[in-house]
Amino acid sequence: MPVLIDAIRDYYGKLGVELKPEDVLVTTGGSEALLLTCLSILDPYTEVIVPEPYYPNYTTFVHAAGGVIRALPTSPEEGYRYADRNKIESLITKNTRAIMITNPGNPTGVVLNEQEMRMIADVAKKHDLFLISDEVYREFCYDDSFGIPTMAKFRDIDDNLVIIDSVSKRFSACGARVGCVVTRNPELQQALLKFCQSRLSVATIDQIGAAKLYGVDQEFFAHSKAEYRQRRDAVVRKLREIPGVLVEEPMGAFYVMARLPVDDADKFQRWLLQEFDDHGETVMFAPGAPFYETPGKGINEVRIAYVLNSAELERAMDLLAKGIVRYQAEQM
Amino acid sequence: MPVLIDAIRDYYGKLGVELKPEDVLVTTGGSEALLLTCLSILDPYTEVIVPEPYYPNYTTFVHAAGGVIRALPTSPEEGYRYADRNKIESLITKNTRAIMITNPGNPTGVVLNEQEMRMIADVAKKHDLFLISDEVYREFCYDDSFGIPTMAKFRDIDDNLVIIDSVSKRFSACGARVGCVVTRNPELQQALLKFCQSRLSVATIDQIGAAKLYGVDQEFFAHSKAEYRQRRDAVVRKLREIPGVLVEEPMGAFYVMARLPVDDADKFQRWLLQEFDDHGETVMFAPGAPFYETPGKGINEVRIAYVLNSAELERAMDLLAKGIVRYQAEQM
Repeated sequence: MPVLIDAIRDYYGKLGVELKPEDVLVTTGGSEALLLTCLSILDPYTEVIVPEPYYPNYTTFVHAAGGVIRALPTSPEEGYRYADRNKIESLITKNTRAIMITNPGNPTGVVLNEQEMRMIADVAKKHDLFLISDEVYREFCYDDSFGIPTMAKFRDIDDNLVIIDSVSKRFSACGARVGCVVTRNPELQQALLKFCQSRLSVATIDQIGAAKLYGVDQEFFAHSKAEYRQRRDAVVRKLREIPGVLVEEPMGAFYVMARLPVDDADKFQRWLLQEFDDHGETVMFAPGAPFYETPGKGINEVRIAYVLNSAELERAMDLLAKGIVRYQAEQM
Repeated sequence: MPVLIDAIRDYYGKLGVELKPEDVLVTTGGSEALLLTCLSILDPYTEVIVPEPYYPNYTTFVHAAGGVIRALPTSPEEGYRYADRNKIESLITKNTRAIMITNPGNPTGVVLNEQEMRMIADVAKKHDLFLISDEVYREFCYDDSFGIPTMAKFRDIDDNLVIIDSVSKRFSACGARVGCVVTRNPELQQALLKFCQSRLSVATIDQIGAAKLYGVDQEFFAHSKAEYRQRRDAVVRKLREIPGVLVEEPMGAFYVMARLPVDDADKFQRWLLQEFDDHGETVMFAPGAPFYETPGKGINEVRIAYVLNSAELERAMDLLAKGIVRYQAEQM
C-alpha cells in the first residue's frame, strides 16, 4: 500500500527538492494546511501581508487565528503584478509575521519569475518573516521557460518558508480533501504537529488514493497543461474582442481576472442570472470585490475560471459580450 | 446516492429528535466539529467549564480559539461523577461561555442519568451558556433503562445546545473522518457555516460511505453494545481482583479509568514497555495525568480502552496484575 508522505517526497524529489519525512505534514486539503499554519504562527493582531486580489478564504483562516491582513495593492493595468520590493517593505510593521502569496496566483494567474521569487524570499529572510507560499497551481504555468516554480529550491530560507500544497488542482481531485504543509522549520513543525495530532488524521481512503495519484505518468501533467493553455488562449482572445474589457494574459493557474465595462460586477452577475438569456443560456463568473481586502476595490472586475472545454468557454464569452451590450443599454 | 445530511436527520429522527437540514453541519470528524465550535463561540480568555478527567484534545481546540479550560474536579472514589449543581455553578464567572461534557464519558465511562442531564441543561439555560454535549459514544450505554441519551431532546435549550457527533465510534469507522455539529441556534449555525465554507467540504467518498453506514440494521447496535458490555465486565472483574486497584464500573463508552497502586502511571508504563515481559508480552494503557487540567492530578490513574476481544483483555489484565507486583517489588 503506497504511503502518502513518501509519495509526496518522491514528487518533490522530481522537482529537485529533497524533503525529510518530518518536513511534510499531511492535511485535510490545502484549506486545513492554511488554517493550521495561521493558528501556528499568528497571535491576535499580528499581521500578514497578502497581495490583493487574493483567494477570499485566506481572510477566514487569518481571522480564525486572530490575525489581520495587510493588503499589497495591485492594478489590472499592471496585470496584477505585485513583486515590488519597496511596496512590500513599506507594509512591514513590528506586528508583521508573514508574507502570504499564491504562485501561480488565484484569482489573477500571475506567475513570479525567478528574480521575483528570489526577491520575495530575500525580504522574508531580511525581516525574519514567514513566507507562506501557496503553490497548489504549481504545474499550471504556461511560460515553459519558468519550469515548475517552487520556493522550496531556496535553501537559505528553510526557517522562513511554509509551502501550502494540495492534490486537488494537480490531479483534479478536489473532493479528496488531501493536502500538506511543507516546512523545514523544526519549531513550526512541532506546532503544526500538535494541531495535526489533536484532530487525529486525514481521511484514510483518501490518503491511499492520493498516494496512488502521485504515481501518475508525467504525460498526465503535459496533457493537462496543454489543455488548460488552450482554454486560457480561447478565453483571453474572446475577452479582448469585447469593447471596454481590460485583460492581461495570465501566465498560470486556471483563472483570468478582467475589468468589465459595467458599473458593478455583482449587480451585473445578478442581472445575467435573473434578467438575461440567449437561447435559454446565460453565463456566470465570480465578482471581483470579495477578492479584495480594500473596500471599494474590484467592483467592476471579475474572475473567470476556465474549467470548461474550449468550445463551451468560447460560447460563455460570447454570452458575456452579448450580456454586456444589453446590460449597458438597459443602464442608459 | 445517499445524502449524508439526510441520513443523519433520519438517524436522529429514530431517537425522537427532529432536525431541519440547517441544524446539521457535516465536519471532518468530531475533532473538526469541536475545533469549529470553539472558534465560533470563544474569544481570547473566555472560559469553558469541563469536568476532569477529560479527552485531552479538548485543550488544543479550546486553546486554538484563545480560550481557557476551567476544570470541574471529580474523584475516582466517587466514580468520576460530576453532575453537582453547586460545584458547576461555583465555576461560572463573567467570562464563562460554555459547559463542555462528554456523555457517555471518555475517559471515565460516566453516563448522566435523566435528572443529571436536565440539571446541566438548566444550569446552561439559567446562566445563558452554551452547552457543548459531545455524544459520540451515545450508543455505548450499558444501563438499558437509560436508553440512548441525547441532550437534543430538551427543546427549551435550543439556543444553548451544541451537539458534537461522529461516525467513528458508532460504526467503528474512525478512519473515515466524518462527524457533525448539531445545533438549532441560528446565529451559531451562521458562524459555523462560515468556517465550513472556508474549508470547502468534507471528503466526498467518506461522506457517501458514512451516509450508507447510517442505514445499517438496528441489530448492528445491539450486537456491538452486547460485545462491549461483555468486554467491560471482563476488564472490571479482572481489575477488581488486583490488590490496591480502585475502580468503579463504568456505565458507558469503552473505557475504564482506574487508580493503580503505583507511584506514577507514566513511569510504570515506561517500565512495562522497557523492562517487563511475561512470555514475551506486556501491556499498554493511557497514563492518567494528561486527562487532567489540574497539575498533579491523575498521576497514579490510567485509562484502559477495552477495544480488544474479551480473551485478550483478560490476558492484558493478568499482565497488568503481574506487572504491578513486580514493579512494586523493584521499587522497594
